[in-house]
Amino acid sequence: MQEDVLKYIKKHNLLTEGDVCILALSGGADSTALAYIMHSIADVYSLKLKAIHINHGIRGDEADRDADFTAKLCERLNIKYDIIYVDVPSYASLNKLSVEEAARILRYKSLYEAALKFYFKDDTEKIKKFSDISDLYKTDVFNNRVKIAVAHNKDDNAETVIMQLIRGTGLKGLSGMKAAAGMIIRPLLCAERVQIEKYLKQEGRGFVTDSTNLSTDYTRNRIRHNIIPELKEINQSAIDNINKAAEIISDTFDYLDRKVYNIIDRHMLEEEERISIPIEVLKKQPHIITAHIIRLMIARACHSLKDIASVHIDGIEALMDMQVGKSIDLPYNLRAERTYESLCIYRKDKHCNNKNIFIKMSDGSIRELSGGKMFEITVFDYIYGMEIPHSDVLKWFDADIIGSDYEVRYRKTGDFIRLEKVGRKTVKSYMADEKIPARDRGDIPLLVKGSEVVWIVGKRINERFKIHENTKKILQIRYIK
Amino acid sequence: MQEDVLKYIKKHNLLTEGDVCILALSGGADSTALAYIMHSIADVYSLKLKAIHINHGIRGDEADRDADFTAKLCERLNIKYDIIYVDVPSYASLNKLSVEEAARILRYKSLYEAALKFYFKDDTEKIKKFSDISDLYKTDVFNNRVKIAVAHNKDDNAETVIMQLIRGTGLKGLSGMKAAAGMIIRPLLCAERVQIEKYLKQEGRGFVTDSTNLSTDYTRNRIRHNIIPELKEINQSAIDNINKAAEIISDTFDYLDRKVYNIIDRHMLEEEERISIPIEVLKKQPHIITAHIIRLMIARACHSLKDIASVHIDGIEALMDMQVGKSIDLPYNLRAERTYESLCIYRKDKHCNNKNIFIKMSDGSIRELSGGKMFEITVFDYIYGMEIPHSDVLKWFDADIIGSDYEVRYRKTGDFIRLEKVGRKTVKSYMADEKIPARDRGDIPLLVKGSEVVWIVGKRINERFKIHENTKKILQIRYIK
Repeated sequence: MQEDVLKYIKKHNLLTEGDVCILALSGGADSTALAYIMHSIADVYSLKLKAIHINHGIRGDEADRDADFTAKLCERLNIKYDIIYVDVPSYASLNKLSVEEAARILRYKSLYEAALKFYFKDDTEKIKKFSDISDLYKTDVFNNRVKIAVAHNKDDNAETVIMQLIRGTGLKGLSGMKAAAGMIIRPLLCAERVQIEKYLKQEGRGFVTDSTNLSTDYTRNRIRHNIIPELKEINQSAIDNINKAAEIISDTFDYLDRKVYNIIDRHMLEEEERISIPIEVLKKQPHIITAHIIRLMIARACHSLKDIASVHIDGIEALMDMQVGKSIDLPYNLRAERTYESLCIYRKDKHCNNKNIFIKMSDGSIRELSGGKMFEITVFDYIYGMEIPHSDVLKWFDADIIGSDYEVRYRKTGDFIRLEKVGRKTVKSYMADEKIPARDRGDIPLLVKGSEVVWIVGKRINERFKIHENTKKILQIRYIK
Repeated sequence: MQEDVLKYIKKHNLLTEGDVCILALSGGADSTALAYIMHSIADVYSLKLKAIHINHGIRGDEADRDADFTAKLCERLNIKYDIIYVDVPSYASLNKLSVEEAARILRYKSLYEAALKFYFKDDTEKIKKFSDISDLYKTDVFNNRVKIAVAHNKDDNAETVIMQLIRGTGLKGLSGMKAAAGMIIRPLLCAERVQIEKYLKQEGRGFVTDSTNLSTDYTRNRIRHNIIPELKEINQSAIDNINKAAEIISDTFDYLDRKVYNIIDRHMLEEEERISIPIEVLKKQPHIITAHIIRLMIARACHSLKDIASVHIDGIEALMDMQVGKSIDLPYNLRAERTYESLCIYRKDKHCNNKNIFIKMSDGSIRELSGGKMFEITVFDYIYGMEIPHSDVLKWFDADIIGSDYEVRYRKTGDFIRLEKVGRKTVKSYMADEKIPARDRGDIPLLVKGSEVVWIVGKRINERFKIHENTKKILQIRYIK
């Protein structure tokens, strides 16, 4: 067993020399085996082990029994440990969560906090800085030197796959659990539950049994007790085979994900909660990739995919062939809209408004931006002494300085303008200084050359493009709302 | 129900105007619904319907009851029908198959034969020509105008997915059934069994129940009766969700398959049962693609993937990093070998022998081909009158005519040579005329420039590259076995 686990750890690079390893220890068979095995291989990696036992505040005496068992186990193995008390019932009712979901969240939160305390010791500043639980899925907080080992096994993984399969999910859900996810490592994911129990028996190791295991997570327990045994009777390698299928799906998902990230890195435009991508780019992709991109866009816009079903994805895909301005509503107060050149997903309480739609304008042409905003461009000779118009919506620029590669779009990070006296200033700080409300800032069109803003429409123009005594040609731009 | 089916047929282009449609009709709920529905939409597509009922020679009286029921149903709907008798038990014992597998094969064979007879009428020549059952999965035999409609529904598909999941399979297996596979169409794959039964009840239609349904296909029936109902209790949309997951996996598989075909069309070399691909090409791909390519190579080499497990795929992948000549044995008497530049899969009773390994040789260099065959190249000035050597393994060529872009490889389709008096001749016909046994033809090295063969090593040289009176430099090539 140790050898298998060690091989698995090596294969997936779960540990590196000198790592801090936090063990999540319930006292059940899996985590007890995890403790023994990690203890037995601690020297191989010079691990600094620390065990965390979480008392969920649910099971009264039984919870105390488990804490006692864990404490004794850790003392015998000479592993430092903490018993952490969390109040699952209160947290669940406060956050309107199921008991299982609340327990899961508090468990990982406690483990993460233990990791912070262990690594940063008494540096409360640092602990506070990194206290966001989402960092659990990153590895850089601790320079990848702290791991949280949990005791999931192949049976847990098979249960997850079946749960996801009947719940309705994409490839990601069917991928099951990973050997490593951020700081979390799963060294026992190479073993089936029977193997783990056999190992404990052979070694003469006791463990405790959680009586609520039979009742808490309804779906998982039904799958564990009614489905899995039947599947194993039909095919004794069922668990193993489901794990292998999940691995193939996981590899496939990763492959597609890389492809998709490649595409969105180049083409997706994101500002606050407005995400858009050129329809031309989406249309070149097969359905499977388009759907993946759309899912990612929604995830970016609302940081969740929980209630997004294939009907939404299909609906958004269908928008691509509809006329400009058509939209569909999505969960989380989101809306997807087909704009002039892009597919745009945004919060309904904001606007899409051609957000980030690039419009190239050539001399003399008029081109409509979806949303009805227009720019009229005229070029004519400058005769010295001509009176420069004073208007917020009609501006003159030196046509030779501005050249032809200008465009109209909404603001992006890095945009700057050059103002008289003030000099170079970011659009962000200009807008802040002008007290333009944050929610309106993205709706102001900008005439730009790359990151340099020529005209913050309705407001200032860039000093560099102004008419001066040597100007030969005037580029006049009129903004019609 | 009709509308749903019609929509599904349209979505997947299952039918075209004027199609011949063979209905597989057992008399059970699904196929009875299929008959009613296809009959009701026959006018929409101007279908020519024909029903086939197969008596498997297993169930005695009950089979007669089913045949009677089917006959009456077809007469009522005015659909032409045939009752076909097959002897499943004999076929099973003769071919060492399970009863279910034998029944499945004979069922599809009968349907295909019925299609042939219906389409080609009495043209026995044509019927014989296309009698290979594997044509069932092509659509060109009947110019895509004949379809075989089978009554698989969403429940069947979910069962298949679960079966494959626990059996251990790749993405293809997890894709479940397709709306169309060659001539076979599955119009009811958009409906769950309960919907079909509800439809029959509403319309007041009877059907027969196959009592062996409960006993024949052990695995499927256990899944049908023990697993599926439990999954539906946990999540009432389980069947639908499993079908959706299968569709996503199927789309993903198709996407990867296109990628892989793209690669192998350009790089895979195949001759008889020897398949090879440059390692350089494989190494550029992620594991998921490499594994897919290797599976396809095996499928090409032995026309089956039944006993190929991931251990074989992993083993073959590992070969890429081993030294030339390393090999592993596979099922079906196959062997995978790492050759000089390629990964090669071949039948053990043949040889791999650097099959199709391209070796570029530059003047003066000696480079070993894996397998120990060597070519020694020397260049020197030609002095008029030098005696041209007469040897099967040492040849002189005009160095200026041959240039530098020659290479040594084994034969490929399209190879030709120019011979004195005879003129241009394909290598294939040369070898045939010379009575070189077919199995040896691939082992003869060829010195080539593109498709033009300079030297069939050990045999003839191309007239165009011979030494002549104006030759200035000689390219001497010595072949050392």
